[in-house]
Amino acid sequence: MKKPLILVTNDDGITSHGIRTLIEVMRELGEVVVVAPNSPQSGMGHAITIGNTLRLDKNDIYKDIVAYECSGTPADCVKMAKHIVLKERTPDLVVSGINHGSNSSISVLYSGTMSAAIEAAIEGMPAIGFSLCDHSLEADMNHCREYVKTIASQVLKTGLPRGVALNVNIPAKTKDKIKGIKVCRQANSQWKENFEERKDPYGRRYFWMNGSFSNSDKGQDTDEWALENNYVSVVPCAFDLTAHHAISILNNEWSI
Amino acid sequence: MKKPLILVTNDDGITSHGIRTLIEVMRELGEVVVVAPNSPQSGMGHAITIGNTLRLDKNDIYKDIVAYECSGTPADCVKMAKHIVLKERTPDLVVSGINHGSNSSISVLYSGTMSAAIEAAIEGMPAIGFSLCDHSLEADMNHCREYVKTIASQVLKTGLPRGVALNVNIPAKTKDKIKGIKVCRQANSQWKENFEERKDPYGRRYFWMNGSFSNSDKGQDTDEWALENNYVSVVPCAFDLTAHHAISILNNEWSI
Repeated sequence: MKKPLILVTNDDGITSHGIRTLIEVMRELGEVVVVAPNSPQSGMGHAITIGNTLRLDKNDIYKDIVAYECSGTPADCVKMAKHIVLKERTPDLVVSGINHGSNSSISVLYSGTMSAAIEAAIEGMPAIGFSLCDHSLEADMNHCREYVKTIASQVLKTGLPRGVALNVNIPAKTKDKIKGIKVCRQANSQWKENFEERKDPYGRRYFWMNGSFSNSDKGQDTDEWALENNYVSVVPCAFDLTAHHAISILNNEWSI
Repeated sequence: MKKPLILVTNDDGITSHGIRTLIEVMRELGEVVVVAPNSPQSGMGHAITIGNTLRLDKNDIYKDIVAYECSGTPADCVKMAKHIVLKERTPDLVVSGINHGSNSSISVLYSGTMSAAIEAAIEGMPAIGFSLCDHSLEADMNHCREYVKTIASQVLKTGLPRGVALNVNIPAKTKDKIKGIKVCRQANSQWKENFEERKDPYGRRYFWMNGSFSNSDKGQDTDEWALENNYVSVVPCAFDLTAHHAISILNNEWSI
């Protein structure tokens, strides 16, 4: 049987610990091609490079694996992988991550990791974004391998519903063993930001955005509930943003 | 009666023609406060500034209107407006635009204009992103005023369903009068990109992303259909990306 073709990308950059772990696991499942940002792209959401040029350069850091570094965003990486690197070959699976930090609940919107997966879904490819709930750049990711491999193997076997990409979050390593994998909905919660004001050496003010996440969704079917209870969370995500339930509300309530 | 408080932002930058038109219309409806990017932010999607500093500086270009320019993305502008500029005052309406270029169909994902509106919706504020289907920086926007005012007035009157922001696209000016306003779903379509390869003066290759949009969704209830038929399109957008229909599919099909 022909080996499946797996495109690997991320948002923390091509040299990050997370993408190295992901590449190692994917090598056990198929032929790996890497197209990843040449610098960290955290928080880039679904940004793409318009009105500016893009670089794409071959990189031999992964020895016997074809790898390219791209000057753009994670979504740019998927587009350039399709058009410049793979051309007429279509990946059987696109994986993004492993992100250093959670992308559960509302964070999925800000996530470069997930935007790469969603971009791949737009192009009709089965895609998964993996994140570890530990933002340390040296986080221990060994406990992730088993779950990454299981979920990727399942998607290679059964595919995904059209227009759907998976947002997978894995609890940080603790002494307790992870209880299993749960398919969830995105928790309806948000970040509470605060902005720390400082003065630069010239006396002008600037700000650092900071924030804490608190889960205000009491459901037990959410990704936040799963993670708090030491399960791996899997949320199927759509790129159709239409709030379909709101169409009839607007049509009925509006007088214009 | 107290005047409503209206926050105005955009992604083309605080001096653009589109935001000036939007400010003029909003002044007729309430007290306007502007917090907008200090440089163009097209294609930024839902990016936010993490791991870097932010500037927020008062700007007097709009005479008797309180206006700030921000070094960040459109989503950053909404966050800074809430926390630094408005503080305990909550806007009755947040409007973003008028974008120079369409944000219909899948473009909503890449749109800085719409990410500002969606960020406001996350914070529980009624929000609308307005875009004109003409990307010229000098596009005639006078025919937009009537529709912008009608839709903003309606939202000020009846509010919006929780968790929903409106994506409004307005056909480019032609000799035919616009037929009306249609509430729609997001067309399921995509961009066909191509990358133009060039050489820099040092002989190294670089790329320009280019593309064309073609509507592959035959439905007559989509934003693309409305725009092609000279209607203003209004798509209610959600920030819950969960593909709810896929949860049972995965739970039933998966053997993990």
